[in-house]
Order: sequence, then structure tokens, then C-alpha cells
Amino acid sequence: MAEYIESLAHLSEQFGKLGGVGKKSAMRMAFSVLDMTPEDAAAFAQAIVDAKEKIHLCPVCQNLTDRELCYVCDDETRDRSTVCVVSDARTVMAMEKVREYKGTYHVLHGVLSPLNGITPDKLKIKELLARVNEGEIKEIIVATNADVEGETTAMYLARLLRPLGLTVTRLAYGISVGTDIEYADEVTLLRALKGRRDV
Amino acid sequence: MAEYIESLAHLSEQFGKLGGVGKKSAMRMAFSVLDMTPEDAAAFAQAIVDAKEKIHLCPVCQNLTDRELCYVCDDETRDRSTVCVVSDARTVMAMEKVREYKGTYHVLHGVLSPLNGITPDKLKIKELLARVNEGEIKEIIVATNADVEGETTAMYLARLLRPLGLTVTRLAYGISVGTDIEYADEVTLLRALKGRRDV
Repeated sequence: MAEYIESLAHLSEQFGKLGGVGKKSAMRMAFSVLDMTPEDAAAFAQAIVDAKEKIHLCPVCQNLTDRELCYVCDDETRDRSTVCVVSDARTVMAMEKVREYKGTYHVLHGVLSPLNGITPDKLKIKELLARVNEGEIKEIIVATNADVEGETTAMYLARLLRPLGLTVTRLAYGISVGTDIEYADEVTLLRALKGRRDV
Repeated sequence: MAEYIESLAHLSEQFGKLGGVGKKSAMRMAFSVLDMTPEDAAAFAQAIVDAKEKIHLCPVCQNLTDRELCYVCDDETRDRSTVCVVSDARTVMAMEKVREYKGTYHVLHGVLSPLNGITPDKLKIKELLARVNEGEIKEIIVATNADVEGETTAMYLARLLRPLGLTVTRLAYGISVGTDIEYADEVTLLRALKGRRDV
């Protein structure tokens, strides 16, 4: 039927373009919009336009922001000598939820993947180097995923930045809190063993 | 972090208002919007406004449409003597997918639920009666769900319409095609037994 109600089909198609939304969910969302009051629907449409218009990259750390600087770079109390390098803004969000990290960030907007054409010049690496050249940064914490691309990126950054006298570290990998050791996979267990610490 | 990027938090909140979308999915969708081109985002926003503006109820069957009459009521080849009564437009969509039903529809926009204040006057029942009074309708197929409200609605319609000389039927309930009989629940099995037919 949706095919016959053009504007409904079109709206559901738009929802289907969002990441991780299937055909049935998209149609359910389109129906949700029809159930809204006209004011709510207009506010929804406006929120899309606003977000797209207002959000840009922070000129310092390349994170998303709708202000001049992002709120981390704008915060005088954050430690500018430590920079956590992440692949995307979502990782910043996850790190900030811990409420422990007091340094700043640098968002690469991707990870190295030469096979897919993602070479260092496609990432925000020259912006990172520019920050390093200002001399304030002492430690770089590379927080990319533990997959091939994430590891490659970490390795690349370590080789690039260590000669400049920076400490380059990586987040610890090991058994997740709450996981039974007997159910941990071999790779994780190996990492946990290699990264063992004094009690 | 999203709390600090006001327009992102606001957009994700808007997505969260859609049926069946949780907090994490809403945030993922908001990020998807940021990944769109400005043109795509504008088209998305416009689709919401358009759908809300253009889609209204068909004056005959109360189904959703963006034309004067819905495409079923507008279709001269559909059998106007049979009306399938459904609770919402989604059920029409499901019925139309079968491509077998050649009659018309009537959308009640809900089911009777006196405990929740949904009394007959809250549904599009007087519109159905008006259609019946025109004299063309011979059979009413009640296609409401097999739950308390759906059954109550079917019963109510049967009592209302049978005295007017109409045939009132209900969709057959039984074992789903593809279900092993041993796994069918008791209620379904009872329905299947009661509704048994000659081979």
C-alpha cells in the first residue's frame, strides 16, 4: 500500500537510509511521524536541518561541536598535555561517560585501511601533528579498536610520534569486567596474559 | 558528550520519540544524519513535513491517502460489496501484500477498549454505518487481532451489523503455515481444531 501513498513511501525510504534501519522499521517510523501532531513533526524536521547546519568540527580536536570550540577544548580545566586519539566522535562520547579522563581528544574521522583507500592523508593526522608541534602535548593515548585497521593506525601513530619525544600508549585490552575467564576467547585471554600486572 | 552538543542531543531526542526506537538507536540515527550530505538531510526534513501535510484520511474508508480518495476506493475494479474492517492502516498494507483480496476496506483507527476509554464513538464506526446505509455492502470481514480488544470489536460489529442483513465474517485463526503442530500453543490449537475443515 505504501507504494500508493507516495509521500509515505518516500518518508519511509528516507528513514531506511539511516544506519541500521531496515525496511520494516523504516515503515514503522514513518507511521510514527503520521501519529505526531503537526507541531511535533515540524519540530522533528527542524531538528534535522538544525543539527546539519550547526554542527561542524572543532578546529582544535576535530570533534563534532555546535559552538566555536568543542566543550572539551573550551574547558580550561582539561589537561592539554594528554591527548586521547579516537577514530570517531562516538568514541569520545563513550570515554566521556567514564568521567575519569581529564585530558583532551583528537578525532581522526576514520582508521587507516590502505586496501579501502583510507591512507594517512584521508584522516585528521596532519591536524594532530600541528597540535603536537605546538609543544604542549606529552602523551598520546591511542584508543582505536583492537581490529586490524585499529592496530595499524595505532602502530602508524606510534612510529610517527615517538621520534618527536612523545609517550604513545594504547588502552589496555583484557578480560571484560563481568566475564567468566572460562568463556573469554583465546585472543582476549592472550592479551590479558601479556598485559598482566602486580596485584 | 551529546548533552554538550545541544543540537545533536535534540535531534537524537526527536528520533527517540518514534515508536520502538531506544536511546542508543536514536543516537546512532542522529549520527547518521550528520554523515548525510546537506542536500540529503534537507530532503529528509522535507519528507517529514510533506508526509504530515499531504497525508489525510480517505473520506470513504478512512484509510491514509495523499490523494482525494485512497487508491482502493478510487479503483473501479474493486468489489464494493465486501468491506474488510481493520484497526489501522498497517493492516491494510499487510492485506494488500497478499494480492488476493479484491474488496474494499474500512479503517477503524483503533479497537474497542472501554477500560482505556476507547468506546464506539472514538472509532470510525459511524462512518462505516453511513457506508452500510448506502446499501451496496453485502459482507463485512472483521480483520482485528485475536486479542481481547480485537475480539470485543468483532463481536460489537457483528451485533451491530447482522440485524441490518449483512454477512459478518472473521478471518480464520489456526496454525501458522510453517509451524510444527507440536509447537503450536494451546489457544491456537483449540482454534485450529474448532475451525477444522473437510480435506
